[in-house]
Amino acid sequence: MTEDEARRSIGARRNPKSAEAILEAAESVLMEEGHRGFSIEAVARRARAGKPTIYRWWPSKAALLLDVYQRQKRDVVYPDTGSVEEDIVRFLKRLLSHWRDTPSGSIFRSIIAEAQSDEKAAEALAGYARDRRVQTGGMIARAQRRGEVGSEVDPLVVADLISAYAWSHLLTGRLDETDEAVRAAARVMLCGIVKTGSQSSAETLP
Amino acid sequence: MTEDEARRSIGARRNPKSAEAILEAAESVLMEEGHRGFSIEAVARRARAGKPTIYRWWPSKAALLLDVYQRQKRDVVYPDTGSVEEDIVRFLKRLLSHWRDTPSGSIFRSIIAEAQSDEKAAEALAGYARDRRVQTGGMIARAQRRGEVGSEVDPLVVADLISAYAWSHLLTGRLDETDEAVRAAARVMLCGIVKTGSQSSAETLP
Repeated sequence: MTEDEARRSIGARRNPKSAEAILEAAESVLMEEGHRGFSIEAVARRARAGKPTIYRWWPSKAALLLDVYQRQKRDVVYPDTGSVEEDIVRFLKRLLSHWRDTPSGSIFRSIIAEAQSDEKAAEALAGYARDRRVQTGGMIARAQRRGEVGSEVDPLVVADLISAYAWSHLLTGRLDETDEAVRAAARVMLCGIVKTGSQSSAETLP
Repeated sequence: MTEDEARRSIGARRNPKSAEAILEAAESVLMEEGHRGFSIEAVARRARAGKPTIYRWWPSKAALLLDVYQRQKRDVVYPDTGSVEEDIVRFLKRLLSHWRDTPSGSIFRSIIAEAQSDEKAAEALAGYARDRRVQTGGMIARAQRRGEVGSEVDPLVVADLISAYAWSHLLTGRLDETDEAVRAAARVMLCGIVKTGSQSSAETLP
């Protein structure tokens, strides 16, 4: 590390805006070079930051990519309509169209792909997915507080199914699902499929 | 193509055992070289078959990999216990342990990864996933014939959620789920989460 780099590195630690500058640089590199041309080196050059600065905050290329991805995804907010069905349907529709209509879909696909052969990327993705399940589970927890969803339900299990549905649509190029198709999937989770009175549902339904 | 290759190619077209021999060769190459060393060339050498023969039956490396994968997965049969809950729970548990305990998990991860940047692999994967949804939906259709699951349910939508759950567990290294965790996810799809009498469930539950 040169003195200049060291100075910037210490500056970065002290200046919270540096993280934002690095994320902006990372976003530009990604847009211009694509994810194949994306590297910590290229981001460091663009941000005029030292590689150690970047590595201190992001342990891997995948971790940095995930933060850029999340930054682009901040417009995909969790709906809060007062109906858990509307919340789930709107959330899924927004997410699928965001992936389809912005570079986000292709970025996230490449992160998932990289995580299948790179241990650090796998860790970053698993941590990200865990965090998203907590966020998505918030929609279910709110519905529980309203009394719409039973207290025996684990919001994280429902969130896991919701995310899984979205991921599998992204990974198999099915981002064009109709409103009806998304709603049909949501209704399986909301209403179940077993007829009232049949054995399996006897414990939870009257 | 040499005369020798042409002869083998025609022989292959006439002899249904050749496809099996190619799949066996492909499996050996995969076991010995890993999926990074896997290529149509290597399989052709091992099977003593012409590359055109292989390409006639499998349009891409991913399509051949998927058939090898399916061949290894033939022991993961669909349960038929008479209870849709047991069927789904057992199917998911078998699939997750098969992926965890055999090379199948790593093969399928690499196919999904390749499909994110290779158009032919994407097509092969999408076709495979479509076919599996039909197979998995069979468990739900059987439950409908028994009267356990309502006729308004689309078995393919439920199958989509079941597959999505399995895929996302494979892709984020969560193949060690407990029986209870798998059952909790199955019960969301079976029983739903919305309380009886609340607005969203009023249409389908008494």
